[in-house]
Amino acid sequence: MNLNYPSKLLEDAVSEFATLPGIGQKTALRLVLHLLKQDRSALETFGNSIIKLGTDLNFCRICQNVCDTDICRVCSDKRRDQSIICVVESIKDVMIIENTQQYRGVYHVLGGIISPMDGIGPSDLNINSLEERLKKGNINEIILALSATMEGDTTNFYLYRRLSIYNPVFSTLARGVSIGDELEYTDEVTLGRSLVNRIPFTVSS
Amino acid sequence: MNLNYPSKLLEDAVSEFATLPGIGQKTALRLVLHLLKQDRSALETFGNSIIKLGTDLNFCRICQNVCDTDICRVCSDKRRDQSIICVVESIKDVMIIENTQQYRGVYHVLGGIISPMDGIGPSDLNINSLEERLKKGNINEIILALSATMEGDTTNFYLYRRLSIYNPVFSTLARGVSIGDELEYTDEVTLGRSLVNRIPFTVSS
Repeated sequence: MNLNYPSKLLEDAVSEFATLPGIGQKTALRLVLHLLKQDRSALETFGNSIIKLGTDLNFCRICQNVCDTDICRVCSDKRRDQSIICVVESIKDVMIIENTQQYRGVYHVLGGIISPMDGIGPSDLNINSLEERLKKGNINEIILALSATMEGDTTNFYLYRRLSIYNPVFSTLARGVSIGDELEYTDEVTLGRSLVNRIPFTVSS
Repeated sequence: MNLNYPSKLLEDAVSEFATLPGIGQKTALRLVLHLLKQDRSALETFGNSIIKLGTDLNFCRICQNVCDTDICRVCSDKRRDQSIICVVESIKDVMIIENTQQYRGVYHVLGGIISPMDGIGPSDLNINSLEERLKKGNINEIILALSATMEGDTTNFYLYRRLSIYNPVFSTLARGVSIGDELEYTDEVTLGRSLVNRIPFTVSS
């Protein structure tokens, strides 16, 4: 649908929304027409919330996660184990892991994953700052919590090779059958690995 | 998914996006994380395009369509027949009709449709300004181009009752079998009406 817009301002707003992933011209127009029904102050709040992402949002000096201050909530929390670093691809992964409430260490956000196909190499990621943290010492464990894909494995391998001179323990997320899954519907690669890496059966009292 | 956001600014932006129709918290987060990868000036352009919808966008003084000036492109176009007004529900309908390039009259945007279920009555729509245009005279025809729904029919009837004292010709969009449709798949109400309102068969030379 190649529409003639009655207004340049309307067209501009639609083009901006259409740059977002999964949003085409048609959806963008629907969103903007919805916005047109809002009052001036609501539009100002919306617009400013986007502008502030560029001007006011900080990245934690230590772990590169987003935050509103110089050092993020996790890194500045004395109750968390600062000697275990969980290396993740993105900010979203931090949020997802935090949501499990099972992890008491700290994070390091790479900001991506090594992917030669997309032209992303080690120098495009926050690896230098991770190395700095290890250089300073007091890091006992690195948890590699990247995607279980070819790119994730490549990045894991690269990090292992580069950072093992600092002698941390390296670990990775357990791979296996999802809780609640029936064996019948588990893919064979996962099932095979779950058998090889079987764990002791315990009965919690 | 009820996530803890590492940043208030991030959370604010996500909440704003989640107010849009068809966009939930999860999609909103994905959109905002995409925005985080953009540079400051791109975010400023995006944000400002939304703010300007409230501050700079005008509605045409005559037809109530959106425009960047006082009177829209269509209303100020002398080559268009200013004596035929096509009454539509929304700005989008103007764009869709303009896109057919078949209409040379002008428009009037009601900004909605009479719908007692949604609490929308005649006073919520741009009907007074439509009446003003008829009062001024020189309007020969009113094309009622509203949806073929109960609400559309109600609004058509209301407009007809209220505006017929000005003696325009009232017309409505032809209803019938869509071009390219097979009879087998045409719904029976449409098919029945197409039979009743059959048109002379002509062979264009």
